[in-house]
Amino acid sequence: MSVTTVDQDFIRRAQELADLFEKDAIERDQLGGTPKAQRDALRDSGLLNLLIPKEWGGHGQTWSAVMQVTRVLSTADSSLGHLFAYHNFAIFYTLSNHDRDFAKRHLTASASNNWFWGNSANPLDKNLEIRKSSVQGASFVANGHKSFSSGSPDSDILTLMWIDPDDNESFFVANIPSSRKGVTIHDDWDHIGQRQTGSGTVSFENVEIYPDEAASRIVSPLIPFSTIGSILSQSVLTQVFIGCAIGALKEAKNYTRSKARAWNASGVEAASEDPYILRNYGEYWVQTEAAISLADRSLESIDAIWEKGNELTSDERSEAAVLAAAANVFAGQVGLEVSSRVFEVMGARSAARGFGYDRFWRNVRTHTLHNPADYKLRTVGNWHLNDQGPTPSSYS
Amino acid sequence: MSVTTVDQDFIRRAQELADLFEKDAIERDQLGGTPKAQRDALRDSGLLNLLIPKEWGGHGQTWSAVMQVTRVLSTADSSLGHLFAYHNFAIFYTLSNHDRDFAKRHLTASASNNWFWGNSANPLDKNLEIRKSSVQGASFVANGHKSFSSGSPDSDILTLMWIDPDDNESFFVANIPSSRKGVTIHDDWDHIGQRQTGSGTVSFENVEIYPDEAASRIVSPLIPFSTIGSILSQSVLTQVFIGCAIGALKEAKNYTRSKARAWNASGVEAASEDPYILRNYGEYWVQTEAAISLADRSLESIDAIWEKGNELTSDERSEAAVLAAAANVFAGQVGLEVSSRVFEVMGARSAARGFGYDRFWRNVRTHTLHNPADYKLRTVGNWHLNDQGPTPSSYS
Amino acid sequence: MSVTTVDQDFIRRAQELADLFEKDAIERDQLGGTPKAQRDALRDSGLLNLLIPKEWGGHGQTWSAVMQVTRVLSTADSSLGHLFAYHNFAIFYTLSNHDRDFAKRHLTASASNNWFWGNSANPLDKNLEIRKSSVQGASFVANGHKSFSSGSPDSDILTLMWIDPDDNESFFVANIPSSRKGVTIHDDWDHIGQRQTGSGTVSFENVEIYPDEAASRIVSPLIPFSTIGSILSQSVLTQVFIGCAIGALKEAKNYTRSKARAWNASGVEAASEDPYILRNYGEYWVQTEAAISLADRSLESIDAIWEKGNELTSDERSEAAVLAAAANVFAGQVGLEVSSRVFEVMGARSAARGFGYDRFWRNVRTHTLHNPADYKLRTVGNWHLNDQGPTPSSYS
Amino acid sequence: MSVTTVDQDFIRRAQELADLFEKDAIERDQLGGTPKAQRDALRDSGLLNLLIPKEWGGHGQTWSAVMQVTRVLSTADSSLGHLFAYHNFAIFYTLSNHDRDFAKRHLTASASNNWFWGNSANPLDKNLEIRKSSVQGASFVANGHKSFSSGSPDSDILTLMWIDPDDNESFFVANIPSSRKGVTIHDDWDHIGQRQTGSGTVSFENVEIYPDEAASRIVSPLIPFSTIGSILSQSVLTQVFIGCAIGALKEAKNYTRSKARAWNASGVEAASEDPYILRNYGEYWVQTEAAISLADRSLESIDAIWEKGNELTSDERSEAAVLAAAANVFAGQVGLEVSSRVFEVMGARSAARGFGYDRFWRNVRTHTLHNPADYKLRTVGNWHLNDQGPTPSSYS
Repeated sequence: MSVTTVDQDFIRRAQELADLFEKDAIERDQLGGTPKAQRDALRDSGLLNLLIPKEWGGHGQTWSAVMQVTRVLSTADSSLGHLFAYHNFAIFYTLSNHDRDFAKRHLTASASNNWFWGNSANPLDKNLEIRKSSVQGASFVANGHKSFSSGSPDSDILTLMWIDPDDNESFFVANIPSSRKGVTIHDDWDHIGQRQTGSGTVSFENVEIYPDEAASRIVSPLIPFSTIGSILSQSVLTQVFIGCAIGALKEAKNYTRSKARAWNASGVEAASEDPYILRNYGEYWVQTEAAISLADRSLESIDAIWEKGNELTSDERSEAAVLAAAANVFAGQVGLEVSSRVFEVMGARSAARGFGYDRFWRNVRTHTLHNPADYKLRTVGNWHLNDQGPTPSSYS
Repeated sequence: MSVTTVDQDFIRRAQELADLFEKDAIERDQLGGTPKAQRDALRDSGLLNLLIPKEWGGHGQTWSAVMQVTRVLSTADSSLGHLFAYHNFAIFYTLSNHDRDFAKRHLTASASNNWFWGNSANPLDKNLEIRKSSVQGASFVANGHKSFSSGSPDSDILTLMWIDPDDNESFFVANIPSSRKGVTIHDDWDHIGQRQTGSGTVSFENVEIYPDEAASRIVSPLIPFSTIGSILSQSVLTQVFIGCAIGALKEAKNYTRSKARAWNASGVEAASEDPYILRNYGEYWVQTEAAISLADRSLESIDAIWEKGNELTSDERSEAAVLAAAANVFAGQVGLEVSSRVFEVMGARSAARGFGYDRFWRNVRTHTLHNPADYKLRTVGNWHLNDQGPTPSSYS
Repeated sequence: MSVTTVDQDFIRRAQELADLFEKDAIERDQLGGTPKAQRDALRDSGLLNLLIPKEWGGHGQTWSAVMQVTRVLSTADSSLGHLFAYHNFAIFYTLSNHDRDFAKRHLTASASNNWFWGNSANPLDKNLEIRKSSVQGASFVANGHKSFSSGSPDSDILTLMWIDPDDNESFFVANIPSSRKGVTIHDDWDHIGQRQTGSGTVSFENVEIYPDEAASRIVSPLIPFSTIGSILSQSVLTQVFIGCAIGALKEAKNYTRSKARAWNASGVEAASEDPYILRNYGEYWVQTEAAISLADRSLESIDAIWEKGNELTSDERSEAAVLAAAANVFAGQVGLEVSSRVFEVMGARSAARGFGYDRFWRNVRTHTLHNPADYKLRTVGNWHLNDQGPTPSSYS
Repeated sequence: MSVTTVDQDFIRRAQELADLFEKDAIERDQLGGTPKAQRDALRDSGLLNLLIPKEWGGHGQTWSAVMQVTRVLSTADSSLGHLFAYHNFAIFYTLSNHDRDFAKRHLTASASNNWFWGNSANPLDKNLEIRKSSVQGASFVANGHKSFSSGSPDSDILTLMWIDPDDNESFFVANIPSSRKGVTIHDDWDHIGQRQTGSGTVSFENVEIYPDEAASRIVSPLIPFSTIGSILSQSVLTQVFIGCAIGALKEAKNYTRSKARAWNASGVEAASEDPYILRNYGEYWVQTEAAISLADRSLESIDAIWEKGNELTSDERSEAAVLAAAANVFAGQVGLEVSSRVFEVMGARSAARGFGYDRFWRNVRTHTLHNPADYKLRTVGNWHLNDQGPTPSSYS
């Protein structure tokens, strides 16, 4: 199943949700916080089970499908796109786990309960300590806090990841109810963009993790498939960037045609006939189409490596990782450029705060910073110049 | 008197004000509205009389001085830079008026009363009608409203401009107390940037304008000096853009050195040693220094045409106008680029709303739209290719 | 048959030819003139019959196949890529002709004789006059000359196109032996790039065109399929630009690894480890991969409209034309950027004339001028803003 | 004496020479080799003595004057600009030498004999060995060869520089007649640009250097003035880049107005009225004016540090070096951009080799490689971020 073979019914459902989310996207961007109604609409849509295998009660779709839905949602509201994608990314740690019983149990439950997943797994934040538990019945106990916990507010399940303190090499993944005693999900995310992603702090006070909730997770360069998380997370953001560019252009089109005024010196009747405005739209779209095309090629390669599973070779992993990095960097550049420049085809009055057109730039800008573009370019360069793939990590 | 001969004491005072304004610039950006305390600090500084001739009680400084003060204020808070500059721009219509008695009377009063001027003179808004008055004692009566009335809230004086309805060719300029009966200054400016410039609507209901408040103003291509307003207003924005770029870089420098984290893959201890971060700062500064240099060259030419007065030839006007347009376009591009990219040398956490670092981009973006860059580029191109200067207008 | 279903055997043959052409590409670039040996190698390869239907003795491949071969050849020598593509473009006028007997007769002959086609059909040059002939046996007689006659030297067949002088609306297309009496093919092409494309002048002195050599050709916006020539010609150049970018990067990779010196201040042992050089390669490749992806998407749409034939609707034609224009503009920008910047990863000594590395920029620059990018951007913008497709012409 | 106080008579002479050199610049670019007649015209102009103090028989002008002449010459022929500038750069090592008797003797002779200086002093080439001589009367003997010996063909004097083999720290500078026995100046410079700069190899076979021809030269970070050579050499190239941009625009203006054709779809009569062509000229000139302004600011700072002499502090040196690096990087970017894009305002036929319009890009490209822009950007960034000046070297 590739980009072109994604079941279009899911894309249509995503478009319907996007149309719904668009109605109050500007207002919700101002508010921040948790988009409870919209999260519930996602629950109702059935799309939360997109990636879960059919035999476990899900829709058995590919990552391409997940990513395309993310892109469509992001055209209207990239916070919702983000929440949907990170739900799937949290599921990924379980879905790809070698402990198939663990995977089946959790994902079957997820499908039947229509769970919305959040995570508290940011690898750069070292303030959460998870140790073996001395309490009867519990395997581990978590104390501390974790920032950038995307999607944690209003989540049903929280995915945690940590390095086994005993051997410092293997990992553990656990999925616990977000309502677990000792878990406090703070509503403290207040960045300039992606304002309803709930990417704030979760704090843990003697939070017990039970045996059936955790599984070890081998992450080793020797098993390339175990290291593809960074490819998926880069691709998620690629879709957010592209969705923002498309969304900004959609709003601009509407504005230029209905509200923009022809410039005095232009000699034309309508802004939509201005030669410079037409050329600018041309530039934005050429860039956006190029970003879409490169992203779609990367999605095909992601579907291919996903299908390979443990057969995936290191070189195949490198090739897909480099393509995902390229697609991400390029989409980020285009997203920034288009969302910043698009005011130029609308004019001075389009900067009124009520239109909320700056949210596209703020959203892209916020999300293009988590993994520096310069280092991704180095990764791409090292592959093409020296035939060396990136060292697998959370970011490469 | 040129860029290099500006009395540096005024620049120092501007820097002191900038240091003061910086303290709560982020908070005030969120609030919008009128920066009353800061406007009063400007009043107290004596800088409001910078441009008024010494013989009329002012400081007799050049436009270079005004523009440099604007730039310095804008590094901390470009709303204040804007308010200061448009105060001077309102004064310009009186200061350059051929009715020297009118000019002397109003500006002597301004200097002795330390007036802060606002304007309600946006040439593209046709919703304000000013007619000859039938009321005893009044020359004109104004009805309607005017948008983009920068600096009107908390102003002492409002400058109005209108075309003589009798001959449709000559203009009138009037300076009335902002407290005049029938004038309502609305606090309705709510754009994404330049949030405390009070650039909202002023409405007029049977507002009387008395004989000594108004003067005719010849604006004719035959008298090039009468048409230099657009050169000054473009230069005002040039300083705002440059101030924003410098301000963003100042904040970034502080952040990179004190808060930014070295990227894992960088192999360096501190973000400030990262080869890509260093190179990025290099790029931002090369661009910013180029914008400063071009702007300074334009300021020298503005001082020169100002000194020429009515001796100014059409070709000299064209040359200064083209240079001002070039400086404006370039500073706008650099301001946008630097203020958008500067997050890349700070990292993901710098997008927290509390830092307010997005205000620089929002401020530049808001102000780069009032006079489309494409048409200014056409103006520059037409001069260099066809030796044709711009047709004098409010925007060229 | 789409991009991914092209018979890879033909691509392999193209790669073998590219390897051959590369050997003396630098020398031949200096010489200009006609690459006789290389043209003969193309004849021997069988690739000249790629597009001709199987039932007429050809290989029955799609335009995707033609374009991909063009791209591969262009990585080594974009003059040869150009000659191959314009051979097919000349064939196109016959292959798509509604006079199927004419098409069959000429193309069957072409396949069996392994003809190499050139053209003398530049629509902007009005110096060739073709009239009805008064001579017994001849239908038309041609007098005058035609510039930009790509591929005419060493061609077997020349395709001519002209507007019917009787009704000024319909066209004629004719294929005559290049050796026809009165035809003089001048070796006067001497541009800075694409130096062996033989795009010079052909002059005609009472050249007779016989009845079985000409056919009328309906070119009408009412029959969208009759107007797709400009889509194909834009796509040809897209492949040339991409081929040049890939070729430049291939040469650079080789040079950086074998000859470039680490910069003193870099602190690394080898140029290939320099962080800036790696990042630069990353930038070039991200751009190049984006151009490839967009171009490939355009090829799929070209195959689709080709397959539709006379069923093609105006909207489908517009969509394919806009995508082809976007791919062309973007590939042109990338080709220029990469071919100009690539010296920066090689260093001062790479500018030695013997390496011939400037040929990539000269080739791209020469070919990005025939159809101004600004107008293609306007076309793209008008489609996305106003939902208006381009008016079909030789260039849109 | 600053940029604005340069004796304009010298600039006029430079312009006269530029007008002369322009006549056959295209032809000579094709030929390469040594521009003997043009070098002699430079000799006749008196400009070779521009920098030599008046009391020693020269014109006693500043570096600003030298750089402005370089820029003017480069608008017509950047090889001649280069030769003139490197003549002065060779003189610099003597003029700034602490051995004032050595300086006076050599430069008085130079002024009275109207010498044209070349150099054989490329610091990166280690293939020339100069040792203390055992021969009676000679101080040193040189053997080996040196590449990038700009201006050596047809020079009267060759400047050599080498590290004292005894202490490996101090340097020696020597000026010997180019006709000295054992010196062979090879005509082997054949790069894609700067084709008549004679920057090839000089070989030395037992070349004797006599006591009065050499002097020790202290180059130490402790004496900042001793390390300003890299600032001057960067500024030389800055002028070459700007000259090329201006030259390309001059040619383009001429072409667009006299030869370019209006594009069919433009709806205008003349190419010079095309809205996109006008805008493009605007873009090129905005960039070029910015480069000029930044370069001029750097020239003022160069005059200032030159005047300081040994009083120059390390911080002053850093500031001037960073500004020179910024001006150089920016001028290089603008030179490349303008010289590559300028074809777009002329059209397809402007790529004919006879026009030689590609020489501007080839010239800039060749000269932007000797000192990587990335490392200069790092230098600029390190100054602005970390307040650290560049470590003095031949390139920083």
